[in-house]
Amino acid sequence: MMFPMSDPAFQRARSAEAKQAREQAILDAARTLGAQRGVRDVTLTDIATAVGMHKSALLRYFETREQIFLALTAEGWRQWSADLREDLARRAHATPAEVAAAIAGSLAGRPLFCDLLAQAPLNLERNVSIESVRSFKLVTLHEIELIGAELDRLLGLSELQTVDTIATATGMAGALWQMATPGPRLRELYTSDPRLGHAVVEVEPRLDRVLTAYLTGLVTAPATTV
Amino acid sequence: MMFPMSDPAFQRARSAEAKQAREQAILDAARTLGAQRGVRDVTLTDIATAVGMHKSALLRYFETREQIFLALTAEGWRQWSADLREDLARRAHATPAEVAAAIAGSLAGRPLFCDLLAQAPLNLERNVSIESVRSFKLVTLHEIELIGAELDRLLGLSELQTVDTIATATGMAGALWQMATPGPRLRELYTSDPRLGHAVVEVEPRLDRVLTAYLTGLVTAPATTV
Repeated sequence: MMFPMSDPAFQRARSAEAKQAREQAILDAARTLGAQRGVRDVTLTDIATAVGMHKSALLRYFETREQIFLALTAEGWRQWSADLREDLARRAHATPAEVAAAIAGSLAGRPLFCDLLAQAPLNLERNVSIESVRSFKLVTLHEIELIGAELDRLLGLSELQTVDTIATATGMAGALWQMATPGPRLRELYTSDPRLGHAVVEVEPRLDRVLTAYLTGLVTAPATTV
Repeated sequence: MMFPMSDPAFQRARSAEAKQAREQAILDAARTLGAQRGVRDVTLTDIATAVGMHKSALLRYFETREQIFLALTAEGWRQWSADLREDLARRAHATPAEVAAAIAGSLAGRPLFCDLLAQAPLNLERNVSIESVRSFKLVTLHEIELIGAELDRLLGLSELQTVDTIATATGMAGALWQMATPGPRLRELYTSDPRLGHAVVEVEPRLDRVLTAYLTGLVTAPATTV
C-alpha cells in the first residue's frame, strides 16, 4: 500500500505515541490528585475516573497504583535534583548553613515529593515488580551521585557523607511532611490544645535547622569513615 | 445477697480486670505479629485470630487496627525513653558522639518501635478518634520533655534543640528502618545488583553517624534560635 498511515512502521510509531500520551495523562491525573488530597487517599479507581478510563484499561499501562506513584517519585527525584544542583552550581563557595537552606527550601517547596519520599519505602516499593524497583533505585542513586558531587565540591564531603546527607535530607523531609500534614481534624486539635504546641510541625524551618547543625558537624569533626 | 461474688462493686472490679486482661492479650498478639512480619502486613483479622476472638468482639476493646498499634507506639515511647534516660542518667559528662551512640543503639535495638515510628504519622494517627490522638501525643510530648532534660544537662541544648534532636532521631529511625527492611525479595535485589550497593541500608551505623554530626554541629555553632 502507498498511504503512509497504513505503513506498519508509521502505525507502530503512532501507537507508541498514543500509548505514551495515555501514560502521561495517567501520571498527570495521579499527580493532581496526590497533591490535592495526599498520596495515601488516592485509589486506582480515583485515577481511572479522573482520566476517563476503566480501571482494567488503566492496568494495561501500569502494574499497580503503587507503580504510578513510584514513577512520580522518580520524576520528583529528577526535578528536585536538577533544581538543587542548578542552585548549588551557581555558587563558588557556600557555608554549611547556606547548603542546608538550599536543600531545605528545595524540598519543602515540593510537598507532593515530600509525601512520596515517605510513601516510597513504606508502601510503593513493596507493591511493584522487582524490575520497577530496580529502575527506580537506579534513578535515585544516579541523582544522589550528581548531588553528591556538588556537596563534595562545596563542603569537601566524602562519598559516604554525601549519601548520608541526602538520606537525612530526604528521610527527614518525608517524615516531617507526614507530621506537618495530619489533616484538618488533627491540625485543629494541635492548635486548640495548648499542651500540644510541640505537635505542630513546620517542614522548612525544622529541616533547615537540622541540616545546618548536621552539615556544620560534618565539616567540623574529622571524618572517621570514608 | 451475702456472697461477695454477687456484690456489684466486686462484679465491676472483676469485669474491669477481665477487660484489662483481654486488652492486654490483644496488644500482646499485635506486638508479636507486628514484630514477625512488619506492622503494615498485620490486619485486624490476623490479630483477632491470634487472640481467639471474633473481629466484632475485638472491636469492643479497640476502635480500629490503628488504635491497637498506636497504643503499642505509646508503649514503645515509654520504654525507649525509660531505657535511654537510665543510660544517660548514669553519665556525669558525655560527648555528642557518646550521646548519639546511646540514642542510635537504643532505637536500633527496638525494630518494632522503629517500624511504628514511621507508621504513626502516616497511617495510625489518621484512623483513630481525636481523643486517641490527643492521649498518644500527650505521652510522646511528656517523654520528649523527660529525654530533653537529660540532653540539656549533658550537652546544654535549648528546648527547641532537644525537640529537634528527638524528632530527628525518631524520624530517621523510622525512615531508615523502612529502607533497611524492604522484605526478602528486594533485599535479594539490592545485594545481587552491584549498581544498587547504596540501596542497602543499616539502621544503627547510619543513625549513629547522622546524630553524631548533628549533635556535634549543635554544640559547635552558637544557637541562633531558642
